[in-house]
Amino acid sequence: MSGSNRTIEVCLTPALIHLHDLSNATVVVIDVLRATSSMCVAFTQGVNCIIPVATIDESIAYKEKGFLIGAERNGEMLEGFDIGNSPFSYMDEKVKGRDIALTTTNGTQAIAASKGAKQIVVGSFLNLDALCSWLSKQEGNIVLLCSGWKNSVNMEDSLFAGAVVHQMRGDFEFTNLRDTAIIAERLYLLAKDDLNGFLEESSHRNRLKKLNIDKDIEYCLTPNQAPVVPGIINGVMVDLLKQ
Amino acid sequence: MSGSNRTIEVCLTPALIHLHDLSNATVVVIDVLRATSSMCVAFTQGVNCIIPVATIDESIAYKEKGFLIGAERNGEMLEGFDIGNSPFSYMDEKVKGRDIALTTTNGTQAIAASKGAKQIVVGSFLNLDALCSWLSKQEGNIVLLCSGWKNSVNMEDSLFAGAVVHQMRGDFEFTNLRDTAIIAERLYLLAKDDLNGFLEESSHRNRLKKLNIDKDIEYCLTPNQAPVVPGIINGVMVDLLKQ
Repeated sequence: MSGSNRTIEVCLTPALIHLHDLSNATVVVIDVLRATSSMCVAFTQGVNCIIPVATIDESIAYKEKGFLIGAERNGEMLEGFDIGNSPFSYMDEKVKGRDIALTTTNGTQAIAASKGAKQIVVGSFLNLDALCSWLSKQEGNIVLLCSGWKNSVNMEDSLFAGAVVHQMRGDFEFTNLRDTAIIAERLYLLAKDDLNGFLEESSHRNRLKKLNIDKDIEYCLTPNQAPVVPGIINGVMVDLLKQ
Repeated sequence: MSGSNRTIEVCLTPALIHLHDLSNATVVVIDVLRATSSMCVAFTQGVNCIIPVATIDESIAYKEKGFLIGAERNGEMLEGFDIGNSPFSYMDEKVKGRDIALTTTNGTQAIAASKGAKQIVVGSFLNLDALCSWLSKQEGNIVLLCSGWKNSVNMEDSLFAGAVVHQMRGDFEFTNLRDTAIIAERLYLLAKDDLNGFLEESSHRNRLKKLNIDKDIEYCLTPNQAPVVPGIINGVMVDLLKQ
């Protein structure tokens, strides 16, 4: 065990980000269903970079610059866009080597809320091990920021935050673990053997049921399909493992 | 099972109260360690009423009107006040029949944040059964508001919210259970057989350790010592079971 001067914090929703000091922190933005899962898949499929944009209009402006554009609102892909919020929408030759401008309901908003962090990366069950391994080599504090659903706390992002806390605690003895980190870890330990079953009752899971994306959800809850660490450098998201 | 048109929501911190519609709701303010626990004890000891006030100055002004005054900041009783934040400070003949003006770090602030609710009551493990029994006879929605610690989510209040969700779900089939209610209930079920042990790791528990109040904590985690339902009528807290 080492690194006892580091802290790891869980912010359960972007609405509480002001309670965390980001100045010396790596923020891990989490939107398991599905923005950050899809971002992880994008980089395994050879996407060159992703520019997270806040609005749909901004996204459209990038189309004229030769970008593929992606947008999701309330779980659904928008008309006129190249890519939605499904990880499978990136499993296509057309994305290879391309630049993508992307806006989603919660994920890209959470990235915007992390401004001021030393480094912003994204996490999902798909890159759990790669992320934790990368985090363990960094210095400074870690803030796991759950995107939630329109500022409400959600289950799936809390579970993933718990997975990271649990995995990182194997390597580091963190100081002053706050209750949200403990809550997230406890939930994860309760859920880890059947994440899909555990989520059955959750509200976003039920919201998404109407969209017929069971396949997406099962995929997003399967750890370590995408050994990448998407992170933002000068406003542009790239795979930090390739830099 | 009945009452399927009711909802029960858990708000993990006053900083998220704007996400909940309070207009048709009973808000249960929760500050297990120790404000709402102490309020429950106060009414079992014959206190006539409690006026929750936001500031220390307001509290002092009530002294001149013949009130006993209580104040706590950062877990400690303040000099010149009659009562602190310990449930045991109410176990004294001097409180019988008296009016009390009280301000605490988190509890009374959470009461202030609940303005606009149909009814505000307070909950703690000490009045768990009495509260749930009273709630089951009311109409409309229920919002369980955890006071937290300076707007951060804490473990003990989340656990108690989970206890109420769990107990109420025995009587009602609630609609649209949100993820925070599920999270709180899951945590409670994990912790219920040893609340004290479960809290050992929590941050407020550790903060309070310095204050030597293990006896307070053990008492506050013992369900059903105070069969009262403190609730606010015209700005004044009284035991609703005696009205």
